[in-house]
Amino acid sequence: MCATTPTALRESTEPSDERYVIGIDFGTLSGRALVVRVSDGAELGMATYAYPHAVMDTTLAATGERLRPDWALQDAADYVEVLQKAVPAAIADAGIDPALVIGIGTDFTASTPLPVLADGTPLSQVPGLEGRPHAYVKLWRHHAAQGQADRINAIAAARGEAWLPRYGGLISSEWEFAKGLQLLEEDPELYKRMDHWVEAADWIVWQLTDRYVRNACTAGYKGILQNGEYPSRDFLGALNPDFADFAFDKVAHEIGQLGDAAGTLSARAAAWTGLPEGIAVAVGNVDAHVTAPAAQATEPGQMVAIMGTSTCHVMNSDVLAEVPGMCGVVDGGIVSGLYGYEAGQSGVGDIFAWFVGNQVPGGMFEAADAAGLSIHEYLTDLGREQPVGGHGLVALDWHSGNRSVLVDHELSGLVLGTTLTTRPEEVYRALLESTAFGTRVIVETFAASGVPVTEFIAAGGLIRNPTLMQIYSDVLRMPISTIASEQGPALGSAIHAAVAAGAYADVLEAGRAMGKVNRAQYVPDASRADAYDLLFSEYLTLHDYFGRGGNDVMHRLAAMRREGFAAQLAATEPETAAVSV
Amino acid sequence: MCATTPTALRESTEPSDERYVIGIDFGTLSGRALVVRVSDGAELGMATYAYPHAVMDTTLAATGERLRPDWALQDAADYVEVLQKAVPAAIADAGIDPALVIGIGTDFTASTPLPVLADGTPLSQVPGLEGRPHAYVKLWRHHAAQGQADRINAIAAARGEAWLPRYGGLISSEWEFAKGLQLLEEDPELYKRMDHWVEAADWIVWQLTDRYVRNACTAGYKGILQNGEYPSRDFLGALNPDFADFAFDKVAHEIGQLGDAAGTLSARAAAWTGLPEGIAVAVGNVDAHVTAPAAQATEPGQMVAIMGTSTCHVMNSDVLAEVPGMCGVVDGGIVSGLYGYEAGQSGVGDIFAWFVGNQVPGGMFEAADAAGLSIHEYLTDLGREQPVGGHGLVALDWHSGNRSVLVDHELSGLVLGTTLTTRPEEVYRALLESTAFGTRVIVETFAASGVPVTEFIAAGGLIRNPTLMQIYSDVLRMPISTIASEQGPALGSAIHAAVAAGAYADVLEAGRAMGKVNRAQYVPDASRADAYDLLFSEYLTLHDYFGRGGNDVMHRLAAMRREGFAAQLAATEPETAAVSV
Repeated sequence: MCATTPTALRESTEPSDERYVIGIDFGTLSGRALVVRVSDGAELGMATYAYPHAVMDTTLAATGERLRPDWALQDAADYVEVLQKAVPAAIADAGIDPALVIGIGTDFTASTPLPVLADGTPLSQVPGLEGRPHAYVKLWRHHAAQGQADRINAIAAARGEAWLPRYGGLISSEWEFAKGLQLLEEDPELYKRMDHWVEAADWIVWQLTDRYVRNACTAGYKGILQNGEYPSRDFLGALNPDFADFAFDKVAHEIGQLGDAAGTLSARAAAWTGLPEGIAVAVGNVDAHVTAPAAQATEPGQMVAIMGTSTCHVMNSDVLAEVPGMCGVVDGGIVSGLYGYEAGQSGVGDIFAWFVGNQVPGGMFEAADAAGLSIHEYLTDLGREQPVGGHGLVALDWHSGNRSVLVDHELSGLVLGTTLTTRPEEVYRALLESTAFGTRVIVETFAASGVPVTEFIAAGGLIRNPTLMQIYSDVLRMPISTIASEQGPALGSAIHAAVAAGAYADVLEAGRAMGKVNRAQYVPDASRADAYDLLFSEYLTLHDYFGRGGNDVMHRLAAMRREGFAAQLAATEPETAAVSV
Repeated sequence: MCATTPTALRESTEPSDERYVIGIDFGTLSGRALVVRVSDGAELGMATYAYPHAVMDTTLAATGERLRPDWALQDAADYVEVLQKAVPAAIADAGIDPALVIGIGTDFTASTPLPVLADGTPLSQVPGLEGRPHAYVKLWRHHAAQGQADRINAIAAARGEAWLPRYGGLISSEWEFAKGLQLLEEDPELYKRMDHWVEAADWIVWQLTDRYVRNACTAGYKGILQNGEYPSRDFLGALNPDFADFAFDKVAHEIGQLGDAAGTLSARAAAWTGLPEGIAVAVGNVDAHVTAPAAQATEPGQMVAIMGTSTCHVMNSDVLAEVPGMCGVVDGGIVSGLYGYEAGQSGVGDIFAWFVGNQVPGGMFEAADAAGLSIHEYLTDLGREQPVGGHGLVALDWHSGNRSVLVDHELSGLVLGTTLTTRPEEVYRALLESTAFGTRVIVETFAASGVPVTEFIAAGGLIRNPTLMQIYSDVLRMPISTIASEQGPALGSAIHAAVAAGAYADVLEAGRAMGKVNRAQYVPDASRADAYDLLFSEYLTLHDYFGRGGNDVMHRLAAMRREGFAAQLAATEPETAAVSV
């Protein structure tokens, strides 16, 4: 395309009444901007920007301080750079006139909260605080607040708090209240300096609009907002007297409904992005939930699994049920008018990546290269022809803990059945299968709770692995539909942008026009499904033995890991030990 | 040394009254010959010869046929090549006059039996039989006769056979009777052709002397010979009517006592080895048992652990006790006049080797190379400074099954506690530790049975890893003595050769003169030992849960592995499936 005549060229190839929206998906390692045509959801251009600080889970970049196990921080400044870099690059990639963009929508990992001042300044950007780990964003997979979560759950159960069953009976250490309590108890001075404990999903919208609106999705799922109320002052004071006003002082704020506009693009953000000042900016959203309309999966019983580093499951229902171990049920949490359910698996692609990074011989990488395959494709192919169970292995997919249905991030991974002839591709396949078994536990728990899953729609990066998809179909004994977009969350955000801009009446209507799905792309094979039933029953026995109190060895090992780390830190870095313990 | 004047040189450096013996150790992958001075056990020369066929555990070399899981065969011709190659090379290495060699002793892996004709010809060398897997040597770690072992144990227990408690209550699938029954039931024609079912330990002595003498050690430990009797015709017929005469027809033969001469070196074997015809050849022996005098560890309560690919534990006692899960107790099984106990761990170094071959990234090999370390040394060093339990892992060392105390080769390996930050060196260390825990189970079982272990002496290749030795000392809460020879079994065989040649009155006297040990080279550290107590208790819980019927998942997975293999074989190689299933 000729740089000197872009407008003329565009006019010749696009009808002049087409309009565009931008969806921006803030993931674990990068943000990506997608340019989408409002009329039909066509994806015209895309750009990704990797966060310069990525995930800080071993050291704090600003000081080099070692972080304790289970920490995972991010730097909020990285998110603004996504607006500055990825949005203009996506517009350029699409070759559209930015003046034709009518709205912008965003989605984020969650719960990913950060402490900010009244004007939205992250504490990590306050001079003098950049060396304090608690000043930074706590990424969803920051799992160091388990002690706080345990107390929240024990006290809530003892008091019979009405909101507890809405979260499957357990509040996760990943969420706002556990992480906020950790902040209070480990760095009380910072806690005092904080004016708002804000989800990154809402903070980025704040940066775009200069308005702080708390989206109904994270407020409900991660912020324990049910029927307009947060946990009581009484309850919070029972956790810690200094925490009594947490909900009122640090969390509560104006709520925005999904698909509504939070505000309009500020002059400052227009300059960052190259988009017109004053266009609609949608209320923030969560990467998983926003994907449902992108996959045309907003009817009751349609479960969308967004399968990436972790997997989130979202499903609408017209029934309010209590599903043990779900992440939560929120009225209007996915689309308004239906109960939105969420469940999740803390580690999926993350486990596969850990495996190839730590347990695969160099020769296999060379062989994969020679075959023109990624290491994941190569390992998948090597193990594909083996009959189900032929490896003699069963694994537990808990390397990053278990979100649903056990809600226990002190659990850890297990591989059982190895012999001296066990090959890396066999262990890899056992890990793939273990995540499918984990999904089956979730699907069966929903069914047993009165909210059956009638269609399973997969989205996210892992749908590019057809063998994995077939395993899921065989293990679940269900057809698997797949989203027909490589950019489900960003497309979902774009759909919300279109609604916020008034191009559609609501998210359902916009999803029907702009969403994309391949129905029943994989169907179960009866004999493989039978064999998987046997392996699944082994998985389930181990799941309950190690996950439901039969043998709490994983909890005890997690404690030893922490103690060992503290001892090692004290021995090797006495000057930082005081800060970190 | 000048090649033209060897005799003159030798005479100038060695007193003319010195005499020498040769010890030959037939291991799992190679045979090694050691030249030893009779007066003081000085090791003067050594040579190793790797078996050309190594271990055939995936395919049969002669035909390329795929072998079923758990098979492990060898080719007896390889053993003769050790005599032809390694013995002359060792003599050359020592620079001694072969005319001064007065005896030769051998030791072997066990139970490693082969079917032979009346003249000792292995069936695998009978024209037309070279393509039959059952015609070959069944290496000790051939584990495909578990079904037969299970029946032997069930029927022996039901009938209250008196010999059963002498083997800890369980006959191993590794031993003569289980493997012989497998041969009968899977290839009855070969079974008929076989005149003797002979231990390789005795077959090699047969090749040296032209006489078949069955050594008291393997006959007792592996051949169920107790108080001069084998299992009865009645019992064997109950296993299979065609097996009734197995002991009488195929197994029973003249017994030779340890340290005695089986005969003298034949002209043929003198030509192979370059040694004088007519010198003494000691009765055959087992690699583990022969090591006890080499480590000066023949007193009651001194347990010698020969730690290599697997570990064998041997210990004398003046008490006859029934130790659950021991391999056996044999009167005079190690030295005459004492009860010799044997126990074992099926996989030790084999597990570490499997790990580095299958689960270690290429970059670590490069780093090890750059540091001038073996990969084992490199991994050991990386994990060494971490506090005990700091990895948060516990493993079961059953990748090759469990010999003592569970006697179950359907068990398999397990690693529990992995997280997304678990490093390869942490898993490696957990595997090192798991083998120490396995040893502790054995030591504690002996103590609980009235035969306490008063000193623990380590021998074998793994004693070169000081970190591993320290782990064993900490886990066992005992000092660890180590043999002061790199060639324990070969030195032990040389000691037996010296006794057979009449240079010493008995093995005890020869061991005191020729054996070598470093007493209490490693001592336990109290705080590490305390931490290991915690990990060991986790190991023990898992050991009993998976190994004593709490959850028989490993048995079921082993069955699935076999079925999957058979299905794959049938699908891919229909022409050989008929032979192999």
